[in-house]
Amino acid sequence: MHSFRELLEKFEKRFQAQSFPERPARLYDAARHMLQMQGKRIRPILCLMGNELFDEIVEDAFEAAAAIELFHNFTLIHDDIMDKAPLRRGQVTVHEKFGEPTAILAGDVMLVQAYEHLKYISSDILPDILHAFNQAARLVCEGQQLDMEFEASHPSEIPMDAYIEMITLKTSVLLAMSLQIGALIGGAGDRNIHHLYEFGKHLGIAFQIQDDWLDAFGDPQQFGKQQGGDILANKKTFLLVKAYEMANSRQREQLDEAFRLSGEEKVKQVLDLFEALHIREWAEAEKQKYTEIALHHLEEIAVISSRKKPLEELVHYLLNRTS
Amino acid sequence: MHSFRELLEKFEKRFQAQSFPERPARLYDAARHMLQMQGKRIRPILCLMGNELFDEIVEDAFEAAAAIELFHNFTLIHDDIMDKAPLRRGQVTVHEKFGEPTAILAGDVMLVQAYEHLKYISSDILPDILHAFNQAARLVCEGQQLDMEFEASHPSEIPMDAYIEMITLKTSVLLAMSLQIGALIGGAGDRNIHHLYEFGKHLGIAFQIQDDWLDAFGDPQQFGKQQGGDILANKKTFLLVKAYEMANSRQREQLDEAFRLSGEEKVKQVLDLFEALHIREWAEAEKQKYTEIALHHLEEIAVISSRKKPLEELVHYLLNRTS
Repeated sequence: MHSFRELLEKFEKRFQAQSFPERPARLYDAARHMLQMQGKRIRPILCLMGNELFDEIVEDAFEAAAAIELFHNFTLIHDDIMDKAPLRRGQVTVHEKFGEPTAILAGDVMLVQAYEHLKYISSDILPDILHAFNQAARLVCEGQQLDMEFEASHPSEIPMDAYIEMITLKTSVLLAMSLQIGALIGGAGDRNIHHLYEFGKHLGIAFQIQDDWLDAFGDPQQFGKQQGGDILANKKTFLLVKAYEMANSRQREQLDEAFRLSGEEKVKQVLDLFEALHIREWAEAEKQKYTEIALHHLEEIAVISSRKKPLEELVHYLLNRTS
Repeated sequence: MHSFRELLEKFEKRFQAQSFPERPARLYDAARHMLQMQGKRIRPILCLMGNELFDEIVEDAFEAAAAIELFHNFTLIHDDIMDKAPLRRGQVTVHEKFGEPTAILAGDVMLVQAYEHLKYISSDILPDILHAFNQAARLVCEGQQLDMEFEASHPSEIPMDAYIEMITLKTSVLLAMSLQIGALIGGAGDRNIHHLYEFGKHLGIAFQIQDDWLDAFGDPQQFGKQQGGDILANKKTFLLVKAYEMANSRQREQLDEAFRLSGEEKVKQVLDLFEALHIREWAEAEKQKYTEIALHHLEEIAVISSRKKPLEELVHYLLNRTS
């Protein structure tokens, strides 16, 4: 069994060799600009771990992992255009640097490149893997559409279960699919794949709740971001949707008023209302709840527990961030 | 053997049943808006003809044909965004009706849907078909990038061979790939596939030259479009690139000046210069040349000539349009 770090090293070595054609230079420079931003590579490593949970890692898993990482980067390029984001991971976004038309195309060509990696997968499992990949890809697009629609709504109009569905589609499904495809390659059966998929899905939701929590309540020194960045950007988060759900009519007005302010005063007033509504404790309990559901599904997978070690360590690593 | 019309009917019946999920309604309404614009379906029919050239049409060919038509519509949605086009086929474009972000996503989800059709193809030929599809998809993106770069250049800076390469990538490759994938499904060998691919590629170039010719010299009554639409839009066409290549320095200045005009006077002056430079005759000869190369490749395909009938008829139908 390999640790996250070991798998990351193996993956990076192959993924670095990822080569795009030389021309048209501008198109592929745009694609390369995205890839050099160096994400955490969580999704491709989940794919490798999904494979190794059931059997030794085979070449197919590296191809699938590369496809998944390219797919993820394709979504980032297009999401940044839709969200008009100037920066990502501290660097200028693809559309800011190369213009929107080239950024749209660079995303498109990266998605095609993702599918080209799937071509190398053993043909007996290729149809199933292509289906799992397409299914998740479609759901991620649906999640992004819902996210945009929510961003245009007042938070009081977003039911919590609709919000959770959106986050599940937009972020969790891809984590779940990464594990699922790894498991398919590892020869797992339907029941084990189901539990692994659900593990990934709930892990993703717990991670997203933590992300929102850190932005509001985390130590900005450790977290490396401005405290209350989401509040300043009027972003619809778990916390905000819950706050409006919990608030009485006077508190809703106070929230509305606080969101009309700006800067530190805005963050302070919103956070005070969050505290009064016990949003911090609620979020901690929700994260705990989803983590436990995830771990329950991991437990249900019928392989000896020593094989689950790397995934347990990953849960610990992802969900105990303070920064 | 089936005629274009018969195959079109068969294809439409299945393609109409193409169903997208209900929600998010806005995302799939955008996708459906594009599909109901009713293109000529040339590409999917080429795929079916590629199959029938070698063997009876099988279910795989219909799946591939649907994938190809969805891919084509995906490129139209994204191209219209990049080109800021308000209309297509006389209807308002997807991004004009639904906004750019939803249009980007509707294109993305349509591309994913295309790949979902490929999943149903027999697994023994799936890797080859996936590869051919990806290859063409990548080249089409490259063609669109080059087209955008050319649109930002002065026509005198575009060498004719670079222009032909761009048009080949942007439009011909997809026609060629449609035939190629049909032939792969029909069990054709490498040599026959090569000639069929080249047939489609050259047919595409001839068709594009005719398209440019019709816009400039066609009978607007019959053609149903404004004469000189490309000239009014300053579009880089075969004719324009050739005109600058043929012009002496005084004529180049005259062309530059004519392009600073507007309306009918602009069209008249540019067309007068085209005539003086014998662009009309040149274009007719070029169309003839590419048509002959295409037909030569069709001839080289080692099947009895009666099987080639529908493709010959298609050439006639596509290249003898006066409207």
